[in-house]
Amino acid sequence: MSKKYRVGIVGATGAVGQELLELLFKRNFPMSELTLLASSRSAGKTVEFEGNKFVIEEAKPESFEKLDIAIFSAGGTPSKLLVPEAAKRGCIAIDNSSAFRMDPNVPLVVPEVNPEAIKTHKNIIANPNCTTAISLMALCPLHREFGLKRFFAATYQAVSGTGAAALQELDNQVKQYAKGEEITSKVYPYQIAFNALPHIDVFQDNGYTKEEMKMLNESRKILGLPSLVCSTTCVRIPVMRAHSVAINAEFEKPVSVERAREVISQFSGAELNDDVANLKYPMPLFYQRKVKCGVGRIRKDLAFENGLSFWVAGDQLWKGAALNAVQIAELL
Amino acid sequence: MSKKYRVGIVGATGAVGQELLELLFKRNFPMSELTLLASSRSAGKTVEFEGNKFVIEEAKPESFEKLDIAIFSAGGTPSKLLVPEAAKRGCIAIDNSSAFRMDPNVPLVVPEVNPEAIKTHKNIIANPNCTTAISLMALCPLHREFGLKRFFAATYQAVSGTGAAALQELDNQVKQYAKGEEITSKVYPYQIAFNALPHIDVFQDNGYTKEEMKMLNESRKILGLPSLVCSTTCVRIPVMRAHSVAINAEFEKPVSVERAREVISQFSGAELNDDVANLKYPMPLFYQRKVKCGVGRIRKDLAFENGLSFWVAGDQLWKGAALNAVQIAELL
Repeated sequence: MSKKYRVGIVGATGAVGQELLELLFKRNFPMSELTLLASSRSAGKTVEFEGNKFVIEEAKPESFEKLDIAIFSAGGTPSKLLVPEAAKRGCIAIDNSSAFRMDPNVPLVVPEVNPEAIKTHKNIIANPNCTTAISLMALCPLHREFGLKRFFAATYQAVSGTGAAALQELDNQVKQYAKGEEITSKVYPYQIAFNALPHIDVFQDNGYTKEEMKMLNESRKILGLPSLVCSTTCVRIPVMRAHSVAINAEFEKPVSVERAREVISQFSGAELNDDVANLKYPMPLFYQRKVKCGVGRIRKDLAFENGLSFWVAGDQLWKGAALNAVQIAELL
Repeated sequence: MSKKYRVGIVGATGAVGQELLELLFKRNFPMSELTLLASSRSAGKTVEFEGNKFVIEEAKPESFEKLDIAIFSAGGTPSKLLVPEAAKRGCIAIDNSSAFRMDPNVPLVVPEVNPEAIKTHKNIIANPNCTTAISLMALCPLHREFGLKRFFAATYQAVSGTGAAALQELDNQVKQYAKGEEITSKVYPYQIAFNALPHIDVFQDNGYTKEEMKMLNESRKILGLPSLVCSTTCVRIPVMRAHSVAINAEFEKPVSVERAREVISQFSGAELNDDVANLKYPMPLFYQRKVKCGVGRIRKDLAFENGLSFWVAGDQLWKGAALNAVQIAELL
């Protein structure tokens, strides 16, 4: 890649925005220019990164005239407004919100899983939900080997998924606890320290949350399996920034644990971490700031004929968001 | 009940032992005498409870000669040794360890589920695993209504299940974090604060932990369903003392969410807590020191024909251990 790109980050002050900045530099993304964009509230602020100083500009339709690629991580409402404006101006928008993920004209891409989908883009490419992207690091190689039919997932999600304010809230709450002070909550409806909240994103009429439905809808689209079924329970736990998922999956073909380990260890997005005799299994604390997601606890499922149970952990801000977006930009 | 019993607690200094003491008084169990027993290490120590002073005695075979009922919560090894000694001496042993649970001559009892099983006891009655007892508070009424065939469970277990030292460890770790000190672990192989450990009890040859296998084996025995199948992933999270479980269950008969809510609200061990529009769902923080387990997030399962997904939370030290044992004693 000798070409260099004019890159923009929309939502540069958020938790994912900060990681995007770091990853673009860390991975030596070929940039001729980097523009940090955010809401008018943050415009004018300065961000420093490795000796570079950036003045944040307000994100407006015209901002994208001078950009080749813009990575959006500012939430659904700004994305709905500005992503089409960027695309119209010839800037490729990689959108981390859920706004365009299920749009049949927008590819939803996990580079290790469906890189070919990117070819059909019309200047908009969607980045999947964090839990889905992380789960696919195990589900995809297993699907290619055994043919995925159905799965059940229960998630153990970090507060980073809610954003920088939630990271601060968990930090505050444990400090309040340590000082014997009253614990106060602002970001979550209930205390998150020492608790588990079976509630991520808004509830739908069918009793599932949007987050739980994303696992089904986005997995179908990314894997190209329209008849895949899955049922998910999404739970927030007091962990800072890596998500974990317990999965029970049923396959078309007979499975073997040995072969499952092989295909996972050969998959570029996954790291096999599965040696229970030596207490080796993935844990969210040790998958912070890791490029690969950890897969372990692989065993024959006791309640499916051709089934496997396993456990995946991965950095929500990286594979779950910023890293996948940068990998999409690299694919381009 | 005009008869009064000479009651003993074996393992009186442990986390469950302390709760047993409290619950026996709180529930006005008809005691003529209460003896606290523990290992020789704790013998001679004094325990005070509501103005009563108890000197801990060393648990020996002869200790049970003067007791009518002994509740054991001292771990598998002391139970294996002393439970038969108690039984031999005409003292009814209610054992909280896993030592006798799968013994075909020993009833494994959850009073709300299989009170009739107690009749066959030969002076030994086993108290089930905490996660199983809590899960059954939802599974049992649903089974009676729809006929349980198979289920998947992922647990979110509190540190209290490991005992008093683990409660102390989590407390220490968050205080170390708050002070910016290095975090140290002794009880668990890895840090539990801000982490999730997919490892509870020892690993078996099939890749499952003993804890995960208990859910299958004990549910079969308590529900009287030898062909029930289930697959469980047990995970420790940084929560103090109530466990939560995400369950996907398949039934023989067609299910309805409305009817499921009815049968759960009518079941004596459960509290229906299911109104997502008003953010009502069970959370472990709010099920500490509660007699009933909370059941919520009830919805049609998306991956089973006749299936329900739901979420249960209950106090590990109470319904998961001490309360169930005292309820067994009350049944007697």
